Amino acid sequence: MSKKDEPVRPEARLPKGLFDTPASELRATADMLATIRGVFERYGFEPLDTPAIEHTDALGKFLPDQDRPNEGVFSFKDDDEQWLSLRYDLTAPLARYVAENYQSLPKPFRRYQVGPVWRNEKPSPGRFRQFTQFDADTVGASSVAADAELCMLAADTLEALGVPRGQYVVKVSNRKLLDGVMQVIGLAGNEDAARRLIVLRAIDKLDRLGVDGVGQLLRHGRKDESGDFTKGAGLNDHQIQTVFSFVIGGADPNQTDFFQRLKLAFDKSQSRVGKEGLKELTEIFDLTMGSGYGDRVSVDTSVVRGLEYYTGPVFEAELTTPIKDERGQSIRLGSVVSGGRYDGLVERFTGEKVPATGLSIGVSRLLYGLKTLGKLPADSVRGPVVVLVFPDQPIENYQRLVNRLRNPDDGGPPIRAEMYLGSGKLGAQTKYADKRRSPCIVIQGGSEKDDPSGPKVQIKDLILGATLTSIKDRDEYLKKQAEAQFAVPEADTVKAVRDVLARHRA
Amino acid sequence: MSKKDEPVRPEARLPKGLFDTPASELRATADMLATIRGVFERYGFEPLDTPAIEHTDALGKFLPDQDRPNEGVFSFKDDDEQWLSLRYDLTAPLARYVAENYQSLPKPFRRYQVGPVWRNEKPSPGRFRQFTQFDADTVGASSVAADAELCMLAADTLEALGVPRGQYVVKVSNRKLLDGVMQVIGLAGNEDAARRLIVLRAIDKLDRLGVDGVGQLLRHGRKDESGDFTKGAGLNDHQIQTVFSFVIGGADPNQTDFFQRLKLAFDKSQSRVGKEGLKELTEIFDLTMGSGYGDRVSVDTSVVRGLEYYTGPVFEAELTTPIKDERGQSIRLGSVVSGGRYDGLVERFTGEKVPATGLSIGVSRLLYGLKTLGKLPADSVRGPVVVLVFPDQPIENYQRLVNRLRNPDDGGPPIRAEMYLGSGKLGAQTKYADKRRSPCIVIQGGSEKDDPSGPKVQIKDLILGATLTSIKDRDEYLKKQAEAQFAVPEADTVKAVRDVLARHRA
Repeated sequence: MSKKDEPVRPEARLPKGLFDTPASELRATADMLATIRGVFERYGFEPLDTPAIEHTDALGKFLPDQDRPNEGVFSFKDDDEQWLSLRYDLTAPLARYVAENYQSLPKPFRRYQVGPVWRNEKPSPGRFRQFTQFDADTVGASSVAADAELCMLAADTLEALGVPRGQYVVKVSNRKLLDGVMQVIGLAGNEDAARRLIVLRAIDKLDRLGVDGVGQLLRHGRKDESGDFTKGAGLNDHQIQTVFSFVIGGADPNQTDFFQRLKLAFDKSQSRVGKEGLKELTEIFDLTMGSGYGDRVSVDTSVVRGLEYYTGPVFEAELTTPIKDERGQSIRLGSVVSGGRYDGLVERFTGEKVPATGLSIGVSRLLYGLKTLGKLPADSVRGPVVVLVFPDQPIENYQRLVNRLRNPDDGGPPIRAEMYLGSGKLGAQTKYADKRRSPCIVIQGGSEKDDPSGPKVQIKDLILGATLTSIKDRDEYLKKQAEAQFAVPEADTVKAVRDVLARHRA
Repeated sequence: MSKKDEPVRPEARLPKGLFDTPASELRATADMLATIRGVFERYGFEPLDTPAIEHTDALGKFLPDQDRPNEGVFSFKDDDEQWLSLRYDLTAPLARYVAENYQSLPKPFRRYQVGPVWRNEKPSPGRFRQFTQFDADTVGASSVAADAELCMLAADTLEALGVPRGQYVVKVSNRKLLDGVMQVIGLAGNEDAARRLIVLRAIDKLDRLGVDGVGQLLRHGRKDESGDFTKGAGLNDHQIQTVFSFVIGGADPNQTDFFQRLKLAFDKSQSRVGKEGLKELTEIFDLTMGSGYGDRVSVDTSVVRGLEYYTGPVFEAELTTPIKDERGQSIRLGSVVSGGRYDGLVERFTGEKVPATGLSIGVSRLLYGLKTLGKLPADSVRGPVVVLVFPDQPIENYQRLVNRLRNPDDGGPPIRAEMYLGSGKLGAQTKYADKRRSPCIVIQGGSEKDDPSGPKVQIKDLILGATLTSIKDRDEYLKKQAEAQFAVPEADTVKAVRDVLARHRA
């Protein structure tokens, strides 16, 4: 409703599904990333970074969300009319990197990468259009020992982040089993590729939509809360029953029976791929058991993962303690680590098979999970010491005081400090220091500066000062008050501030 | 030239002007960022992160490169037809953030941010389309003490990164001086806004194009090496002379005279803004001198900065030691830190003046400069210990060996280790370990495993092993050879590996 002669002002807002990250969350994230990096390094992975923008054709289209015109990817044309996209994960860029640099890389090539990825999806609570992934991949290893190692890496990482054993589980399955089931229900032909993808993505939504919702997706289709309709796979009753018995049976306590029946079914349908999947899954099971991870890694055939490019073992880790949101409502956090084998991604470029497997940590989701479980340390970072500024004094004096704190000459560590740079009076300056969570302020007006016994500064301990109002006893109050604000010679400023900081060190 | 029946394969390549970052450079960058973060924290700045994508209108258009249709920004439409862009710096998003959250922020608001920015520019050597900036800004402080502080921050940061005093300089000027010069040459009217911008950007290119090139840009225009023509400001001889005497005179040793003449010229043209610029520049000079930074911060009126949004003090830091490229050619590195005051950026949104100033470190450029000056430590990160795999032995055994190194039970730190996961024979496995820069390999074939005195492992020190060929003396050779490869009981693997690692600790 701006008047004609006023300039049109842009509105200060972010696009939907995008968020700013404040200091406390950034610090917690940085700590978490450092811990993850430590574990990944310990496993022998090396860091790599790739740019955010890639050629659209190099990334390929493997995202589960195909309801949208551009299939979930932010894309735009370069000057030379080539299509570019923001990466939607860190795996597709890795495949491009390996294909481009294959000759010079050690084989296997083991790299980790952390960074933002972008998905042009319908934003919803907990679903962002930019989020951070932390990946580790082994390229050039066909042995399922590489997949088993990633399951153990997931477990070690969660424990390094403070999740106790027993409060998480790494669930592993194999895409080849699902391929075998497709053969069993007669859906293995080239002409059924699209229907197989619908079945895959329906199963992947099991814990979100439940049996009823997935059943609708396997049959005719499903209308979601917003009224959008997703087309179904068109399976009949018998086929649906077979799919469900596969998906749900594999999480049963009585697994041996289940796998016996699965093997019989694959034998009967002569499903070579299904039997291969069983063999690989058994090998991973044996290897994790034999390495002492049997209590952390378990087989669960409901795990299929929504990304189209997986070709073998797939796995995900989730926190098993119930998670509640801020209003105390139980929420489904979903998997915090996921991954699998993608033997075809490098081949897309080169035509040569290069086996590969990797895992990806959803950093924000895991951080949220850790926070809700009380596994994050409280934000203990204090604000800077604030040097107040009197307008009638030369500002250089205050700048020198603050420089002395930042670069102390007593051999001790630097002190976080700043000179007040706004235009507020002394009261506003103290309020500013409170808002910044400063441990103390340094005060030097004319009377301190010109003290007959030499220049002084007043140190006011804001943490101690905040406790004064709760003291009932008068003597105690006066004693604490004297501790909370006191004068020292200017030359002793660093020492006095260090003393105050030492009071409040945990 | 693919045959019709072969699938069309995408080419594995990056878009022009974009690059992958290998492990050694990433590690050096991470160290550098940690150092910068430490200095910025010491100054009392708090971290903030904003997403890569913003509304195009919120970012505004302030980039120097206007030769391109989309003016240097990667842009695309959202589903609701709103234009989105990748951020081209970290300042425009900060202005959006402050305008959006003004009420809840401490004033002044002091934040630092590090992250990639994107510019859709013509790539050239050393000019990338994605690069990392590290910014610190103080919003809500009109005092030039805030600008002076940033000049000192630039100096402290460079010294913390190992650049010795005297090998860099922070040069500071003020946009208001240039505005005053525009008044002096009669180019201050609204109708001349576009020409003023041409003058600004011409001056900003002085050290790249020299006096001749800039002269062409100030007069009729200039054709670059590629044949592209940039339109000039259309100034006459007298105007050009005035501009040059302003730009070049301010770096003179005889500055006092120069500023006297500038003051006279502003007096004569009744340029209030020019005189304000002089006053502010003097204040910054006094404050940095008074704070003991006079040997690091100096006045230089050739500094104007190309970004349109600056309104007051502008500054940049550069390394003064001549930099050479890999072929020994001297190169112009340009400024590694730059910044200035932008009092109008938040006002764009809110209509209310919110004074602000900030600096930005060009991370890759600074890293390159430090590397060329020999200020980066050599890449000393060793690869993991590699446990070799014999195909006739159960793989679980090797996995257990590697787990023991990663999670040692001797109370010592974890050891970087991995089991060989490829399909190569023993020779290839050792070559792999060499290529990974492994300190040693762990070998356990059947004969070691089934040793009559209990299971053994062989440890082979690859670093020591590599020196053997240069040993002439036979006894010495045999002694070193025995040190380089030796057997220990399996239970002592961790201890033996630690001994080898200790040999090579610097």
